[in-house]
Amino acid sequence: MTSKPTAGPVEATRSPAATLKTLAGGAVTFEGGLWARRQAVNRAAALPHGLRMLETAGNLDNLRIAAGRATGRFRGRVFMDSDVYKWLEAAAFEMARVPSAELSKSCDTLIELVAAAQGDDGYLNSYYTVAEPGRRWTDLTHGHELYCLGHMIQAALAFRRGTGDGRLLAIATRFVDYVHSVFGPGRRLTTDGHAEIEMALVELYRETGERRHLDLASFLLDQRGCNRIGPNRHDSLAAFQDRVPVREATGVEGHAVRALYLTTGAADVYLETGDAALLQTLTRQWDDMVEGKLYLTGGVGARHLAESFGHPYELPSDLAYSETCGAIASLMWSWRMLLATGHARYADLIERTLYNAILAGVSLSGERYFYVNPLASNGEVEHLHRGGPLRKPWHLVACCPPNVMRLLASLGHYVATRDGSGLQVHQYAAGRLQTSGIRLTIETAYPWEGRVRITVDETSATPWTLALRVPGWCTGAGVRVNGSPAADTVAPGYLRLDRAWARGDVVELDLPLEAHCVEAHPWVESTRGCVAVERGPLVYCLEQVDHPGGRLADLEIDTGAPLTSAWDADRLGGVAVVRAQGREVDTSSWQHRLYRPIGAAPAAARRPVQLTAVPYYAWANREPGAMRVWIPRAEDRA
Amino acid sequence: MTSKPTAGPVEATRSPAATLKTLAGGAVTFEGGLWARRQAVNRAAALPHGLRMLETAGNLDNLRIAAGRATGRFRGRVFMDSDVYKWLEAAAFEMARVPSAELSKSCDTLIELVAAAQGDDGYLNSYYTVAEPGRRWTDLTHGHELYCLGHMIQAALAFRRGTGDGRLLAIATRFVDYVHSVFGPGRRLTTDGHAEIEMALVELYRETGERRHLDLASFLLDQRGCNRIGPNRHDSLAAFQDRVPVREATGVEGHAVRALYLTTGAADVYLETGDAALLQTLTRQWDDMVEGKLYLTGGVGARHLAESFGHPYELPSDLAYSETCGAIASLMWSWRMLLATGHARYADLIERTLYNAILAGVSLSGERYFYVNPLASNGEVEHLHRGGPLRKPWHLVACCPPNVMRLLASLGHYVATRDGSGLQVHQYAAGRLQTSGIRLTIETAYPWEGRVRITVDETSATPWTLALRVPGWCTGAGVRVNGSPAADTVAPGYLRLDRAWARGDVVELDLPLEAHCVEAHPWVESTRGCVAVERGPLVYCLEQVDHPGGRLADLEIDTGAPLTSAWDADRLGGVAVVRAQGREVDTSSWQHRLYRPIGAAPAAARRPVQLTAVPYYAWANREPGAMRVWIPRAEDRA
Repeated sequence: MTSKPTAGPVEATRSPAATLKTLAGGAVTFEGGLWARRQAVNRAAALPHGLRMLETAGNLDNLRIAAGRATGRFRGRVFMDSDVYKWLEAAAFEMARVPSAELSKSCDTLIELVAAAQGDDGYLNSYYTVAEPGRRWTDLTHGHELYCLGHMIQAALAFRRGTGDGRLLAIATRFVDYVHSVFGPGRRLTTDGHAEIEMALVELYRETGERRHLDLASFLLDQRGCNRIGPNRHDSLAAFQDRVPVREATGVEGHAVRALYLTTGAADVYLETGDAALLQTLTRQWDDMVEGKLYLTGGVGARHLAESFGHPYELPSDLAYSETCGAIASLMWSWRMLLATGHARYADLIERTLYNAILAGVSLSGERYFYVNPLASNGEVEHLHRGGPLRKPWHLVACCPPNVMRLLASLGHYVATRDGSGLQVHQYAAGRLQTSGIRLTIETAYPWEGRVRITVDETSATPWTLALRVPGWCTGAGVRVNGSPAADTVAPGYLRLDRAWARGDVVELDLPLEAHCVEAHPWVESTRGCVAVERGPLVYCLEQVDHPGGRLADLEIDTGAPLTSAWDADRLGGVAVVRAQGREVDTSSWQHRLYRPIGAAPAAARRPVQLTAVPYYAWANREPGAMRVWIPRAEDRA
Repeated sequence: MTSKPTAGPVEATRSPAATLKTLAGGAVTFEGGLWARRQAVNRAAALPHGLRMLETAGNLDNLRIAAGRATGRFRGRVFMDSDVYKWLEAAAFEMARVPSAELSKSCDTLIELVAAAQGDDGYLNSYYTVAEPGRRWTDLTHGHELYCLGHMIQAALAFRRGTGDGRLLAIATRFVDYVHSVFGPGRRLTTDGHAEIEMALVELYRETGERRHLDLASFLLDQRGCNRIGPNRHDSLAAFQDRVPVREATGVEGHAVRALYLTTGAADVYLETGDAALLQTLTRQWDDMVEGKLYLTGGVGARHLAESFGHPYELPSDLAYSETCGAIASLMWSWRMLLATGHARYADLIERTLYNAILAGVSLSGERYFYVNPLASNGEVEHLHRGGPLRKPWHLVACCPPNVMRLLASLGHYVATRDGSGLQVHQYAAGRLQTSGIRLTIETAYPWEGRVRITVDETSATPWTLALRVPGWCTGAGVRVNGSPAADTVAPGYLRLDRAWARGDVVELDLPLEAHCVEAHPWVESTRGCVAVERGPLVYCLEQVDHPGGRLADLEIDTGAPLTSAWDADRLGGVAVVRAQGREVDTSSWQHRLYRPIGAAPAAARRPVQLTAVPYYAWANREPGAMRVWIPRAEDRA
């Protein structure tokens, strides 16, 4: 076992430019709430399922062939190894959380297999070993070799930090040593088409203290925008974030996952170097994303084509791409921005993204996954792209499932931080928090109820500040310490409770969860005349299955009538549903016509309807059918 | 010169299942109106430009290399030859219209080059000859070999019919003879991934009377839906129209140009065979297209991804793909449906598609082309796909420019037909019509004015029926013969004037062109709360350049106020502009926010604005800027 304190996926306890510091790996545990349940499903169902899929899809066979233990042809896409590493990373986090003989055995087998597939010079990539021997580094644009290495490093660090197992790290380090001989000043002046290696190298630097890893990460960042990655076509340069140098970017563009893995890596470099130009650029890019390229769910990457960001306000609902991995990348980026700045808006976006865009990516069972997360569906099966209302057991490009697995397994990492003044709680979930002589018990039914009760079980004697995030969506929050109001006004941002804490102190934070309607900027075409329902951190949607007897596309909401909420233990594993007044519009006068002169037949309400909205994350867990987040407003046509 | 009467692109004078018969090639000529001008630009600017582009892009070099006259590598995509054939087809139609020594010389050179590139066995394809020798027919899915042959046949027939030049037809026939030895019952049971060969083979049958060409076309149709084309993945089968057999299709799906080239070929087979199941299927598919998958402009193929049809009502405005070739394919298909049935709705759609989706594909100069025809643009240059507000001189995939050229050069073909009762005029344009002892002069300023004056210059002595299409958009039409009203009511459809015509008779058709607003079916997400302006056959749009001082995205239209029209000789080569009352909405309260609770700040009108709409086809001919067809209704937010 390691003698160092364990750490989560990001170990920013000594990062010079980090305003907030990360906690140790096991500092936060979930107990009894939504996230505890999702972690349990992730462990009991998703991880075993994932391992079966890696076997079925050929990922493990590819490594066996590369290791000379099997024969056959390489199967799948060029980045198949990365799915193995992400699964291993998830398993490592799980074992760190709660030991598991079964997981341990599976990991032993996989790590041993990975070791056997490594070349004498340290190179390790089953695709180039099996399918294109002799052609390594010949297609940096699409080859994903450094991308796969990045995931290997992250998995290796999860083992090293979580279980003390350094075997995978030894393998990764050999590969990294080789990569240092290939890339860098005076060597190859290029980088991988798909960012990922940057954040991994910074993390390796954090673990080892070896500056060369940080320098290589910086070097690889700087290769972008020099027309060294994409083919010599303007459009592809944008797709690969190779159109302008990293510090000249004014927004997010191109392939969304690539774009945000890159900004995440750049933020990591900032945390270690304090390069102000990087933070300026990243802030500008983050603003660009949230001001025009973000779905209400936190999803990003509007376009199916090139899996990319669109123009500002280009946010179609039914055609949303909003890849699950894009949302995870957004969370990873915002986490580093939060560490860098301490600004609540980053934690706000993490919450929005986590509860909606990310959580929708996996079924309640843990064994079905969305790649694409639209905000509306007509319920029909999709023949031509990855969308539609059916989660799949796995995907030809299976980046998303193990990405969800590793995130859920390490979710405690993203809950709280510390700084010189004390402790910051960014996300609320029932569980325990333990760090540096402080132990807290957190009791809450969040996100279903807004009361959060924090009990101080252990504390240092010196006064310190407990900073509690009041979410941006929240109005009318209140707080009591030991039963007495502790602040006059509790506005969004961080509520700072500075006192000499004593064991047994109780903080009660009250975050009113009134269901309410939101609207989108008028320049968003897809949401014109529509509203969406939110309650607390959750975005809601209508599903056809809850509205029998009518067609979902004909329903409108009366935003003048009050919304009501009710806990429904039997629906979708237990959710708060939101009910609204609405009506069904009579579209029969259209009679198969698609266009007609205005005034030909005024729209008429056929009948009043009670609308039942469920959390967006839970959609498509019952019979397949239509779904919509944005609901037409009845009064616009009254 | 041929001794047969010349024919247009479709020679359906003897087709057994044709309700309406096509006229001879030169039967209709345009004089002095919009189409005469566009034909003149097509001839003077587009064709020479196209020839230069074929040289620059490598199409001609590819043939030279295939012919052993040059060395080098194949350039461009696999279907480069087809662009040469489409250009040749356009040139042939132009020479048939008005002889040209210059075009003749260019065509001589090109036909001689094509001849030299032909193999001893008749095979002719520069890609497989140069880039993949020995691999012909190994990738029917993507290889486009029969697709290119189809275009060669069509060009060959245009020469044979238009100028009497049979050289290209001899080349094509040799290739077709070889293809007969490769495909068919007992031989290869498959077909080309991209339909086109079917309509060409039927046309070859019409020209030669050789039944085997029709049989091969039928055979190739029947290969679809047998999982013989696309890779064994469900989504690709849909893209290639290989998911269900041709007669089991319930709608249009997959790649739009492929889909509609296929339905066009199927319609051709129907016209020759009278196979009722085919017509039933085609009618169902056509209905599916116009009831849910058709843009107001007549454009089809909503999705950038796979250039495909989307689900019903999936018609985004800014993200519309609406490829120019798709619109041309739609016109070709509807023309054959019109010949088959005589139903005015097919001619209605031809008109809508021609004046809007197709005409927008080419600049007023004739030298710039859109591949993608969105119904809205924020005016920004597009880095990631083919959209955006800038037409290009040519495209990497340059199917559209020569497709527009050949259509414009042969446009007279689509104006009128005849049957046992007489003559049908489907489209209105200033010019002359001459067929079977009948000569008419047509005077009109259509589409700018709705008065059409038809003078009988020559007629047979026996009575016959002049059928005039009253467009579906038209209300209040009237007609006079020699000054006297000739019908009580003139409803959309065909107005039939049955009489013993005499030289000097004058028919005056009055089609009121009132500008008016139309709305789309409520299930279309992108148009909610919006209207579009139409006037006669023209769809209008707003362009930023006509609305200085405000942002186009902030403009709304007051549909309660009257629309006015005015001829503007100086704008865009002379257009009727439509003016409307509107207002600019103040979106400043959003302050960079993308979402907010409703009621946070009510939308306020900043100032009244007079809106100036111009024909959609003419957009993007001035400074690049925002454009929109669908305009938010002011009263919805009042």
